[in-house]
Amino acid sequence: MLDPVVAHLVAEKPAILDRFARYLRIASVSTDPAFSDSMEDARRFLLARLQEIGLHGVRMLDAGSGQPAIYGEWLGAKDAPTLLIYGHYDVQPAGPLEKWVTPPFIPTERDGRIYARGASDVKGSTLIALETVAAFLAVEGECPVNVKIILEGEEESGSPSLPEIVSRHSEVLAADAMLSADGGRGSLDGPTINVGMRGLARLEFSVITAEKDCHSGKYGGAIRNALHEMAALVASLHDHNGLVVVPGFDAGADEITEERRRETAAFAFDEAAFLGDIGAQPRGDGAYSMRERLTLMSCIDVNGMWGGYTGTGSMTVIPQRASAKLTMRLAPGNSPQQALDAVEAHLRNGLAPGCRFLVHRSEAACMPYTLRADHPLVLAAQTVLRATAKSEPVLIRHAATIPIVSLFKEKLGLDTLMFGFHLPDEDIHAPNEFFRLTSFDEGFNAWPRLLRELSKFAPNALRG
Amino acid sequence: MLDPVVAHLVAEKPAILDRFARYLRIASVSTDPAFSDSMEDARRFLLARLQEIGLHGVRMLDAGSGQPAIYGEWLGAKDAPTLLIYGHYDVQPAGPLEKWVTPPFIPTERDGRIYARGASDVKGSTLIALETVAAFLAVEGECPVNVKIILEGEEESGSPSLPEIVSRHSEVLAADAMLSADGGRGSLDGPTINVGMRGLARLEFSVITAEKDCHSGKYGGAIRNALHEMAALVASLHDHNGLVVVPGFDAGADEITEERRRETAAFAFDEAAFLGDIGAQPRGDGAYSMRERLTLMSCIDVNGMWGGYTGTGSMTVIPQRASAKLTMRLAPGNSPQQALDAVEAHLRNGLAPGCRFLVHRSEAACMPYTLRADHPLVLAAQTVLRATAKSEPVLIRHAATIPIVSLFKEKLGLDTLMFGFHLPDEDIHAPNEFFRLTSFDEGFNAWPRLLRELSKFAPNALRG
Repeated sequence: MLDPVVAHLVAEKPAILDRFARYLRIASVSTDPAFSDSMEDARRFLLARLQEIGLHGVRMLDAGSGQPAIYGEWLGAKDAPTLLIYGHYDVQPAGPLEKWVTPPFIPTERDGRIYARGASDVKGSTLIALETVAAFLAVEGECPVNVKIILEGEEESGSPSLPEIVSRHSEVLAADAMLSADGGRGSLDGPTINVGMRGLARLEFSVITAEKDCHSGKYGGAIRNALHEMAALVASLHDHNGLVVVPGFDAGADEITEERRRETAAFAFDEAAFLGDIGAQPRGDGAYSMRERLTLMSCIDVNGMWGGYTGTGSMTVIPQRASAKLTMRLAPGNSPQQALDAVEAHLRNGLAPGCRFLVHRSEAACMPYTLRADHPLVLAAQTVLRATAKSEPVLIRHAATIPIVSLFKEKLGLDTLMFGFHLPDEDIHAPNEFFRLTSFDEGFNAWPRLLRELSKFAPNALRG
Repeated sequence: MLDPVVAHLVAEKPAILDRFARYLRIASVSTDPAFSDSMEDARRFLLARLQEIGLHGVRMLDAGSGQPAIYGEWLGAKDAPTLLIYGHYDVQPAGPLEKWVTPPFIPTERDGRIYARGASDVKGSTLIALETVAAFLAVEGECPVNVKIILEGEEESGSPSLPEIVSRHSEVLAADAMLSADGGRGSLDGPTINVGMRGLARLEFSVITAEKDCHSGKYGGAIRNALHEMAALVASLHDHNGLVVVPGFDAGADEITEERRRETAAFAFDEAAFLGDIGAQPRGDGAYSMRERLTLMSCIDVNGMWGGYTGTGSMTVIPQRASAKLTMRLAPGNSPQQALDAVEAHLRNGLAPGCRFLVHRSEAACMPYTLRADHPLVLAAQTVLRATAKSEPVLIRHAATIPIVSLFKEKLGLDTLMFGFHLPDEDIHAPNEFFRLTSFDEGFNAWPRLLRELSKFAPNALRG
């Protein structure tokens, strides 16, 4: 028997797609001040829609500066859990316009796909969540769970205001768990549930070997060169297979058990295709699969390194200063503090005598995150996806970091189920981004069921 | 008995200093097109003076483009050697004007020094040579040797046209040896004779690990990072003491014999002061003195290294390309070809599997140069300096490279005696450059004697 809310969404699909098109026409690029009017338009569009579907307390939440978030709530489900639903209304810049087949802010349907900037990231999945709430209120006059919706306006700019928004409005945002429209499906081949991601830490450092740049004719061979010392330090982070050799760097990380390895292997992953897409060479000694290295092990990448003369031609200088920026992805169990301490100590220990070392640790760090496999959010998602996708969902960990998940865990104690319906090939952050029309069908089928499943749990059960 | 030519120079000193001041007022900066009128003025000044003192064939020698050189000759000394006298009329840019006590192109006398850009490098020493020839012709109506004077206009720009000028005018410039007004005295403490210099070779290379920059969240730990590979390659050039460990790099270099070491030690050199001036840290394991490393051993310096994101803040990128520029100073016996081959092979061998390597060797290479201790140029300089400086001259090798010496050796087969009278503390290439008035006295005393000494040799004896 078809769920009446699902039936309503299916019937409303033409109207929803019309709203989707109107939403996509708003060029809500948060990183470029030239688009500030469009950001305003996007907020008006969402505020009006949240009002229209019957949410309460619809308003903007801000941090005193930056782009405000949009908020609305429906809290009429007595004794049921409260779910904070997260999405973002800003989009990436369109990038090189000449590479778009049709203009980025004129949504165009081709081959069952809607092409537009923001279609996949993340306006499509956001509308699925909103329309689900709208459909419950329209059809049943109520939701099975309490709902608080927060739609951020700076996700594509690194969420600079979100920590302050969450801190200022922590009582408003209090909930039992979070559902994120961002964080899409992991595979074209079958259902997945994201049960974790790596953490992130950032470090910038410089090596100084003299008070000024010196002439290589006068001093060459007699004095230290900052670029040589920098190279030695950076080279000392990895072995020749590209594996991290910094003592203590991954000491706190969870053991890679046979069970973990089996879970990881359950996700079909084509290593050759993964490398081939970018023409890259693999790191590692073969002891672990690429997927294991990506999700269960911490890593270090130097993101930038510079010093001396980098213009055209040649300059016979012995540079006195060299600098590097690095980021670390942190395995479950590791922490930014531990990883940064280990790397900083290793670099200091490796420094040649008498050389100076300057270091800056970024505040913008994220803990790794794990949603345990028997968490009600996972159990509910499994039940839903088994029914709708007709196959057993694979639990996967993300290689990347999703800062909002760490943020809401840290500030509000919320676990997050990522339940977006975008797919990994939809060219987000690139020209010709698209969203599949069939993903609306799949989302309409799944989201109402998810809210019903979650309503079966006691509010406390969803908390950690 | 005072040499009449020396006596004439001493008597003419006020007029010569007046000419020096006029010459210094000409802002002959070759690197900046804004000074092209002044470059023209400097050429007019020199052409007029060479005519005035009685040289023949006074004209400009050019390469079809760039700044022409000034030329003049006196070839009336039958059976005597022919000396090509080298200087340059261009000067370094003045640099930060606010750091000059008096303006750079208004020569000012303070404490027995003339302050002006180009005073030490190399207008003062150039005038000493010119005025010596002028004094011979004025007093004796002839020179003891045949003289060809070439004054270059692009030395401070790296002499881009000089090879072509020398090639085009090789018959005009044919001589038995060269005397250079550039290449000054090595020490404030006593006379020195430059008997060699290191060679120079240049290499730029890049490492490419993927077709595009990749996101460290998606790929971190699974793929090679061009900056890591670059760091490993650069680090592999030296051991932890900063000594080169590239196989074959210095294989052809002359053995560092006990005799060489004694010669090197004869030059007083304060290692602590040398390092202290620039706040630098030493390379080396103590097996060789700093002066030995600077003059008898080849070295490598990376002059620039870059890749990835180098702006403010953080970018989670795995760079696909990293680049470095390096120069090598080459010990006597080494060669650019050999050194470049060794370094390139070492880098290629060290490359991680599958990574791409791009390399560019610069054409602008110089052989190391040695003037043997029993060469007539050295013997003549010793005789002169013993008499005028009243102490035994120390034979020293230069750590740096003097490309014109290699050039004239290679193209015309000439050995070069550097016989400038500037001193190493005169802030060349820096604000408040100066030249000591006493250096004129010392130069006036020495240059006439040098030409007389050289006239005693058969022309053939000066050739190699």
